[in-house]
Amino acid sequence: MGVGRFVLLEPNVRRFVLELPEPDVHDARDRLARVRDALELEGLEVSYDVDLLPAMADALAGGALVTATVVGERLIDVEPGETQGRMHAVSIDLGTTTVVATLVDLAGGAVAAVSSAINRQTPYGADVIARIGHAMTGSDAIEELRRAALETIDGLLDVVCAEAGIGRQQLAEVVVVGNATMLHLLLGVDPTSIALSPFVATFLDPQELRASDAGVRIHPRGRLVLFPSFGAYVGADLVADVLATGLARDPVRRLLVDVGTNGEIVCGSEARVVATAAPAGPAFEGGQISCGMRATEGAIEGVDLSHGEVRLQVIGGDGVRPEGICGSGLVDAVAQLRATGVVTRAGLFRSAEQLEADGHPLARRVVELEGGLKAFELAPDVVLTQLDVRELQSAKGAIATGIEVAMAALGWTVTDLEEVLLAGSFGSYIDPANARVLGLVPPVPVERIRAVGNAASEGAKMALMSFREREVAFELPAVVEYLELSAQEDFNDRFISNLAFPELDEAEVVA
Amino acid sequence: MGVGRFVLLEPNVRRFVLELPEPDVHDARDRLARVRDALELEGLEVSYDVDLLPAMADALAGGALVTATVVGERLIDVEPGETQGRMHAVSIDLGTTTVVATLVDLAGGAVAAVSSAINRQTPYGADVIARIGHAMTGSDAIEELRRAALETIDGLLDVVCAEAGIGRQQLAEVVVVGNATMLHLLLGVDPTSIALSPFVATFLDPQELRASDAGVRIHPRGRLVLFPSFGAYVGADLVADVLATGLARDPVRRLLVDVGTNGEIVCGSEARVVATAAPAGPAFEGGQISCGMRATEGAIEGVDLSHGEVRLQVIGGDGVRPEGICGSGLVDAVAQLRATGVVTRAGLFRSAEQLEADGHPLARRVVELEGGLKAFELAPDVVLTQLDVRELQSAKGAIATGIEVAMAALGWTVTDLEEVLLAGSFGSYIDPANARVLGLVPPVPVERIRAVGNAASEGAKMALMSFREREVAFELPAVVEYLELSAQEDFNDRFISNLAFPELDEAEVVA
Repeated sequence: MGVGRFVLLEPNVRRFVLELPEPDVHDARDRLARVRDALELEGLEVSYDVDLLPAMADALAGGALVTATVVGERLIDVEPGETQGRMHAVSIDLGTTTVVATLVDLAGGAVAAVSSAINRQTPYGADVIARIGHAMTGSDAIEELRRAALETIDGLLDVVCAEAGIGRQQLAEVVVVGNATMLHLLLGVDPTSIALSPFVATFLDPQELRASDAGVRIHPRGRLVLFPSFGAYVGADLVADVLATGLARDPVRRLLVDVGTNGEIVCGSEARVVATAAPAGPAFEGGQISCGMRATEGAIEGVDLSHGEVRLQVIGGDGVRPEGICGSGLVDAVAQLRATGVVTRAGLFRSAEQLEADGHPLARRVVELEGGLKAFELAPDVVLTQLDVRELQSAKGAIATGIEVAMAALGWTVTDLEEVLLAGSFGSYIDPANARVLGLVPPVPVERIRAVGNAASEGAKMALMSFREREVAFELPAVVEYLELSAQEDFNDRFISNLAFPELDEAEVVA
Repeated sequence: MGVGRFVLLEPNVRRFVLELPEPDVHDARDRLARVRDALELEGLEVSYDVDLLPAMADALAGGALVTATVVGERLIDVEPGETQGRMHAVSIDLGTTTVVATLVDLAGGAVAAVSSAINRQTPYGADVIARIGHAMTGSDAIEELRRAALETIDGLLDVVCAEAGIGRQQLAEVVVVGNATMLHLLLGVDPTSIALSPFVATFLDPQELRASDAGVRIHPRGRLVLFPSFGAYVGADLVADVLATGLARDPVRRLLVDVGTNGEIVCGSEARVVATAAPAGPAFEGGQISCGMRATEGAIEGVDLSHGEVRLQVIGGDGVRPEGICGSGLVDAVAQLRATGVVTRAGLFRSAEQLEADGHPLARRVVELEGGLKAFELAPDVVLTQLDVRELQSAKGAIATGIEVAMAALGWTVTDLEEVLLAGSFGSYIDPANARVLGLVPPVPVERIRAVGNAASEGAKMALMSFREREVAFELPAVVEYLELSAQEDFNDRFISNLAFPELDEAEVVA
């Protein structure tokens, strides 16, 4: 699953052992000037937080040999003697649902620990829009959300530090990626404007600050860095994805899609890159689906209808009774209904009678609910209705339209596409063949579709290990053209024509 | 007393009313970018503290008209609409003994309030060396001293804000001057190295930080600025003195002396300026003097022997019984004893018998204490002994040597000197004629000697009112040559030859 680009180890955090000239009456330079002059000989002009000065006074009382720790161009510590402890840094992928922390030993660039946890904001709303809805209730709510994010990060830092056997003060830097709303909330910034037309973020640029100023406990003067975002709905996680996958600097023509409440789309190659966001709605997270649920125990996460019977994969294992269906299960179910001909290109259920007449092995699973609503029985209490299929069509239609607009901007047709990357945690759970059957991704050969679920974490990690990679990432928003989908005049026409499912390839038809 | 240079009002704190373009779907810029772009049109490229972002989100929710407050190149606030409240700033002269706060209304440049208070560090030691001695007892002591300075400043801010009728949040900036030790302690930096050879400060450069990071309560993102120092013993107050007096940019050849435990000396003109510090010891603060005391009630602060009798000026007024003598009284007493011939050029008391023989009206005031120590009775319980005169000789000898070395570096003789400025609070209390009799200042015509006691406050105030003046001040340490007196090989010889008092002018002799 990894994207595995090789990175030359040139961390943003560096340590210098400095031998300072002993002061005498002919050299009136102050201690700060001595340290800065010594660092200048290493080619560095540093800034510092003023509370470094007390530490420096103590360090220089000990003698002429000191160890300076520099993060970027910021001097964060001066310690007496030659310090043995190694410096570490952490990348955080601050997802709406899942948060992943990766601790890197900067001496060798090895990952020393990884841990993930549910975002503690989840009780305040399952998705970005719900979180913003909570934030709109006032500044206390924003503070609740900020604290919840911080507590999630703090808990993860506990775990990864313990696993690596280091103390918090050995963490010089934390780099965070995530969608724009998550980054706003982490800094306590009201995200309301992201949810209201014309969908403007308060900040998109990278932010660099003292970690303690944001409440993140690492080295007292350690730094917190937030990746930039492409737009209010194409966040810093996508910037990290693009960095990790090399999308903007390889000749390979790629499409990267992060399927979620908002489909985030980046498309291009070294020549040119465009990005856009498509409002898919909550269907992929089980929202607005009659038996929809989140991907927790009891959720149907995989559906296989290819053997003339219903085979389900349920979260929790074989013995667990299916209670509902989550996003990946929905994608599978509708794609399989389409592939088996239970659902037409237009997205309509064929009736049980028609199917029976054709001798379709699943005919008896098609039922009519009250009001004549057709549905497919996946399990005793779990059905998929005609309306659910409509919801999915609407969701995939929006994403397909975003992809179409992005590709049109580049002048690409499907044959130009060399690779389709499914990003985000949901991307890892989608079956590429089923995504293709639905038209959620363009009809490229299925082997060109691949999940790069952890690319955002990977990109953040690359930024820890190489300041050059970080510079590349921070320049991406200036390089990548952002297309506002709602500003496309033919958006509605395109959207409507994308509601239908594509023609099936011969290979896709289940006999 | 004021130095009264005119300054063009161009404060470092500025306000801009910005009309931002309404966001629409064709303009994906975030709010921060909108504000920054609008400020760029005003010629400003700003930085900011990240907690500005929540305030900005709130401000921009209100509409397209906002008021931005910028300190230097730092955006500290964005408020909705056109803000009516005026911004203010405060200068602090953080003296070892006395702290003065001056509140300036930046709209018109008027001083809205001034207040002074005793530095609350005083219980921990009367002078810089005593304070450092306390600081050396450990980090708790440094913290005590830091808090004491902060509480002094906080109390003064209460007073000046109340007097001007404004709230703390209307203070955008505080500029502090003071000696290097005071500035170290204000930031909680151990000043020990200043007291130990080779007398190295931890920092001399200007410091600019968030006021709240130092514990100074003004606007939540208001700035605290510390003037630079020339050296460990020629502090930021002297830099402010030089700015206020125009010493480094006028053609007039001036000497500026701040008399204290360390005499601080700056000498020069627009062509060239040198600075040095002379270790005078505590005599000018009443230390090491048999009946010495600080300038508090009961202290003899003025002595006049010119009418053949002892006339005293005692702090507290006529009815107050004299209990001791403070620095300015000591200067007067010894100068008058010298002018009346009671003390010789070498600094020796003539005996009561010799004086009696000459018919000297003060002969009966000269007594012998046990061990044959000669002394002069100023009041029933207040004597000035031969050893006290020696102490004063030593103190003035050090300062005179510093002046001599500084003038020699410039190739100046006494006739080159057009003005002698007595700086610091003590400077206001010294009688210029008596200072000249002692040889504390060179023998220029007495009308060329003048006190500029409040010049440091004045310089700090200039920096509030004009960013150009501030730039000039911050460049001064690079322009002014610092001479380390202890590195002068002939220092001791010069010092010894400066112990004697100068020949008296005819006009100085009291018949």
